[in-house]
Amino acid sequence: MKIVLLGSGNVATHLGHALKTAGHEILQVWSRSLSNAQQLADSLSAAFTNEIGALNNTADIYILSIKDDAIEEVASSFLFKGKLLVHTSGTAGIDLLGKEWANKGVFYPLQTFSKQKGVDFSTVPLLLEGSNEKVVAQLNELAASISQTVRPASSEQRAAIHVAAVFACNFSNHLYSISKDLLAKEGLDFKLLLPLIAETAAKVQSLDPKAAQTGPAIRGDQASIEKHKKYLEASPDLQQLYTLMTNSIIGSKK
Amino acid sequence: MKIVLLGSGNVATHLGHALKTAGHEILQVWSRSLSNAQQLADSLSAAFTNEIGALNNTADIYILSIKDDAIEEVASSFLFKGKLLVHTSGTAGIDLLGKEWANKGVFYPLQTFSKQKGVDFSTVPLLLEGSNEKVVAQLNELAASISQTVRPASSEQRAAIHVAAVFACNFSNHLYSISKDLLAKEGLDFKLLLPLIAETAAKVQSLDPKAAQTGPAIRGDQASIEKHKKYLEASPDLQQLYTLMTNSIIGSKK
Repeated sequence: MKIVLLGSGNVATHLGHALKTAGHEILQVWSRSLSNAQQLADSLSAAFTNEIGALNNTADIYILSIKDDAIEEVASSFLFKGKLLVHTSGTAGIDLLGKEWANKGVFYPLQTFSKQKGVDFSTVPLLLEGSNEKVVAQLNELAASISQTVRPASSEQRAAIHVAAVFACNFSNHLYSISKDLLAKEGLDFKLLLPLIAETAAKVQSLDPKAAQTGPAIRGDQASIEKHKKYLEASPDLQQLYTLMTNSIIGSKK
Repeated sequence: MKIVLLGSGNVATHLGHALKTAGHEILQVWSRSLSNAQQLADSLSAAFTNEIGALNNTADIYILSIKDDAIEEVASSFLFKGKLLVHTSGTAGIDLLGKEWANKGVFYPLQTFSKQKGVDFSTVPLLLEGSNEKVVAQLNELAASISQTVRPASSEQRAAIHVAAVFACNFSNHLYSISKDLLAKEGLDFKLLLPLIAETAAKVQSLDPKAAQTGPAIRGDQASIEKHKKYLEASPDLQQLYTLMTNSIIGSKK
């Protein structure tokens, strides 16, 4: 397929490379920032622009990978009637692309992307929604060309998945960050925790997370819990988070 | 070395197998529950007992892997003066083994262990403390026979590491559990999130967790945050946790 990417962030970058590797042609990259557009376009052998009015009108699909709160505005200035326009957001509904728009869809890759680290796109679940059967078929074909896991998901289901993903990924990563800071305060290296972090994530690939739960809260080890709370006394925010998480684990035993 | 294990839980089980595989002899397993003692002892070709009075007195080291709040009591009934007694707790101080005890130590494996899943012990950091230089040397030798990462750690450092480990591991796993429940409510399979969980943990093996942070909070995507809070309205505990984590991520940007 011939593709125009709108956006130059983490998702646009990883998706663009996966699509190009699968043999699709990236015609053009649009971004509000011309230098960002150029940087991504160069790596995809594509043209680039920062003007919506200068978009190439010969693509089969226009993929919008920008902040949720900019989708509506950019979509409303997209004027190629009849063309297929999709966004890649977990939370935004399909209608944010314009209620009157005939051929629209959602192409949501359920993964965390950082520019500094490559991702094997074949393992990334792609959750799809289309405004009509022809769009669904086109998106299915495009998705299957880069991933082994392609699923339909309504806007409502996708919203639930996105909340779950924030807990499983964004919040977990922030916990890693907190643990790094706690070690740094004692002059200890975060590397000590890396095998633990890897194993915690590896366990739930085969075990139910409830069965995999370990630690003071699930053991009912009140002495350790009190020691930890005391240790965190100087950081009230962390102490509050510790208490909330601990009570939530204890509550989940019932 | 000749070893007696006191305890039959997750740590005793994984540690016992790692020590046996490295060529040490597990003489005996003690547990309050005779059937648990027997089960672990059988898998280690060891004897077993549920009576402290019946402990084999010919071992080089006695390893106590039991709940923190039982360590003091069990240690106080251990009567082989001069023998090396260690516990494997992250939080308990070395003195819980008895202030008067001459040869005591801590042998803390920084990992999450579930009986249902094997662990490559060579990657597990072992944090050691000993009451004198001879004990430290003995523990170092034993630790180096099963792990590539052996470090000294005072009781104070170990306490900090254990708090950090609870955030990085126990709390992350609980977030996986929450995300599974959120998906289940919509009839969606937890398997969808497994690549995301694996990648989130894989990223911080090479990236700083702050640099690896993604999601609505770090993007300042207030529209998504408000949608998610609204979605969680029916679960006030989860909504509170969402808000606390989100504010903590936003606060960490400063």
